[in-house]
Amino acid sequence: MSQPSLPKGTRDFGPQQMAKRTFIFDAIRSVFQRFGFQPLETPAMENLSVLMGKYGEEGDQLLFKILNSGLHEKKEQEKVEIKTAFEKILQQPYTSNSVTERGLRYDLTVPFARYVVMNRHEIALPFKRYQIQPVWRGDRPQKGRYREFYQCDADVVGTDSLLCEAEIVLMLNQVFTRLGLSDFTIKINNRKILTGIAETVGAAGKEGDLAVAIDKLDKIGKEKVELELQQRGFSTEAIERLQPFFGMQGDFLKQMTFLTELFRNSEIGRKGLQELSEVFQLVSDFGLADTHVEFDVTLARGLSYYTGAIFEVKAGGVSIGSISGGGRYDNLTGSFGMPGLSGVGISFGVDRIYDVMEELALFPENNAISTRLLITYFDAAAQRYALPVLQKIREAGINAEVYPDVVRIKKQFEYADKKKIPFVVVIGSNEMETGQLMLKNMLTGEQQPLPVDKIIETVVYTAN
Amino acid sequence: MSQPSLPKGTRDFGPQQMAKRTFIFDAIRSVFQRFGFQPLETPAMENLSVLMGKYGEEGDQLLFKILNSGLHEKKEQEKVEIKTAFEKILQQPYTSNSVTERGLRYDLTVPFARYVVMNRHEIALPFKRYQIQPVWRGDRPQKGRYREFYQCDADVVGTDSLLCEAEIVLMLNQVFTRLGLSDFTIKINNRKILTGIAETVGAAGKEGDLAVAIDKLDKIGKEKVELELQQRGFSTEAIERLQPFFGMQGDFLKQMTFLTELFRNSEIGRKGLQELSEVFQLVSDFGLADTHVEFDVTLARGLSYYTGAIFEVKAGGVSIGSISGGGRYDNLTGSFGMPGLSGVGISFGVDRIYDVMEELALFPENNAISTRLLITYFDAAAQRYALPVLQKIREAGINAEVYPDVVRIKKQFEYADKKKIPFVVVIGSNEMETGQLMLKNMLTGEQQPLPVDKIIETVVYTAN
Repeated sequence: MSQPSLPKGTRDFGPQQMAKRTFIFDAIRSVFQRFGFQPLETPAMENLSVLMGKYGEEGDQLLFKILNSGLHEKKEQEKVEIKTAFEKILQQPYTSNSVTERGLRYDLTVPFARYVVMNRHEIALPFKRYQIQPVWRGDRPQKGRYREFYQCDADVVGTDSLLCEAEIVLMLNQVFTRLGLSDFTIKINNRKILTGIAETVGAAGKEGDLAVAIDKLDKIGKEKVELELQQRGFSTEAIERLQPFFGMQGDFLKQMTFLTELFRNSEIGRKGLQELSEVFQLVSDFGLADTHVEFDVTLARGLSYYTGAIFEVKAGGVSIGSISGGGRYDNLTGSFGMPGLSGVGISFGVDRIYDVMEELALFPENNAISTRLLITYFDAAAQRYALPVLQKIREAGINAEVYPDVVRIKKQFEYADKKKIPFVVVIGSNEMETGQLMLKNMLTGEQQPLPVDKIIETVVYTAN
Repeated sequence: MSQPSLPKGTRDFGPQQMAKRTFIFDAIRSVFQRFGFQPLETPAMENLSVLMGKYGEEGDQLLFKILNSGLHEKKEQEKVEIKTAFEKILQQPYTSNSVTERGLRYDLTVPFARYVVMNRHEIALPFKRYQIQPVWRGDRPQKGRYREFYQCDADVVGTDSLLCEAEIVLMLNQVFTRLGLSDFTIKINNRKILTGIAETVGAAGKEGDLAVAIDKLDKIGKEKVELELQQRGFSTEAIERLQPFFGMQGDFLKQMTFLTELFRNSEIGRKGLQELSEVFQLVSDFGLADTHVEFDVTLARGLSYYTGAIFEVKAGGVSIGSISGGGRYDNLTGSFGMPGLSGVGISFGVDRIYDVMEELALFPENNAISTRLLITYFDAAAQRYALPVLQKIREAGINAEVYPDVVRIKKQFEYADKKKIPFVVVIGSNEMETGQLMLKNMLTGEQQPLPVDKIIETVVYTAN
């Protein structure tokens, strides 16, 4: 048969990538757990009745749908079955479950909402859950956009306490600090502030259009944003009245004072400012030296969903988009008949974090996953001698191997090189006689004869 | 809309189940890593050209196929598109990619083989990889059988060293010991021994039929096995000559001697015995006190695939099928045009291990995932006081929370109860004045006022 291949937009993760990805996942997971979030996993397949209509028209188109069992097309006879099935469909009014009734998970939010509704009598509210699983989207694959990718979400639902927003800021700080990323900015805004602005400039209800346009301020500049606002039905007057917002400068306190003044006729705007200030205050109460938080009145992110705080994180020193984002929403489970459940969540973009860390060379050389020591030997007798030694080294908690075949020592060293194993033990007749085994540090080239317990000590206490 | 539901045969894993499943996965994963196996992850979707024809006729039927993008059925217009697409198919000779060209991963072996072939120039042989991912099969769901379930595989390919078989025995021992399961048996057999038996009784080449029948010895008894052998074309004479094998007794050495004698005319049978003895010898060379290994001449497991050692693990004290299985194969990648790659692998059945551990109450009460401490408080001032305290406790590596809303203390304790949080700190005006915070052990009911650093000490050093 021909060379096998991968479906477009999907990837294998080999050992090296897995080590790096695991480093990221572990950092995120342990911070989630540190803050009392509990794990949830949902199936890859969901009923289409759960998925459809939740992601807009475009989302529905991008869902991967699974052919119902029995609808194969392998044999002539089966073709006939398919034909019959499809003829039936074509005669019926629209029905979603004749050919396909299941689809692949498109995000982690809808399955989470479904889980909450299905388990509402068992779960303790407020419910803090995290979920780290792949999702699938039939997007056209391109650089940095895949058809299968992981999402890492943490949400707390069943409370509107702003303490949750503050803890999200803390979690973001801890995750990126653990990953060794010191230069990052947590941008924060509030939907109510955007609503207030729209009200204030005389374009009440148009905060969506406003957000889409001013979100591009960085990229396309002020003039083009104004043009877009015009096209989106903003009056010349409204655009004129927006000027003070565009030009806002100074520290957080200054901006708050400025906006409070402008929002004297917008109650919702003032509410947004109050919420934002409270979050800043709570974060400061936790006692962080540098919170990395920055108010950004142009931040919008999927505005139709968020009702309060909006978050986004950008890494400094690289030109890669946002590496994390989230916000507060009011109605997680409404579409499943359980209205009024408020929550706030954060999502980490693992693929982008990976790219940032790769670009800034932040991945540690050493990792807990890979082999630390290889035992090599000259003949079958030495191999046999190696086995209890290996057992002892592994019992000490060291990931270790012995080369399985009796081959030239050079080939065994090549294996260590290729697997980047930092320590190699050599056993020959001399070593078997004295019990002093040759330990070679593959990075420094250093080597010395040592008894097994000293070898263990050396490997455990060497950082590389 | 109506109550949302899960697709048949799929499951959500909530916090409690996740904690237990993670305990199992972590044990398996860390043993794999300890033995030098490296992680691999492959996409959920594979091209059908990779999957089809690898799992037999039945397997092909059980594959979940994904509808090609663009084949929706949402609107009348789309119906027409589907109709056109299907009409095209029906006119064409068989083609697999007109409606669906991708399917969901059915096991971890075929994707592994595909990975090896696609990356053969980069990977270091022998290649030791482990893979822990879900697979999907359109089986009829029933107790213990799901349409989505995890597989945990470790394989080493590119060597036929029997040391690999011995290390599998060691890994099985370490995994089940870590899980707290002391009563288990690792059954071992060798395909060549079964071939030898078939040769010896005059039914050369019929070891497949032989295996299927004698595999049932435990369940249906000797008479019915003989009847089945008859139906499978074994002569009365052959069945007569099988009697000594059925009745084999005594320790390993005795059975070896007995079989060596019977195999005096079967070279392959003697080769099987030799391999088996070598594995036993190597395991013993590692110095294990109790290897849990037992030779079982009736063990067969998917015989068509295995060419050497065959493994299976059963737990004692419960009537649950095998919890792990594997063996040696000769031709992992042949169907992808890369013949002659030998390997040996082991697979852990996580769902069954879960059931065994649940039945024997082996899951530890305490786990690294859940919250260890909740801070409760009487009012907003006390909540604010709690924040730097919480920060300090988390910095000490303790998973901790503060209840987000200012509510009655009783409600906060109910939350701790429901989440099974073992420690609760109470902060009121008295505590804020003295800095001595009330720490309550929720399991013993004990409580005492302590400064923060003593609280941290107590929580870290209490086992529950």
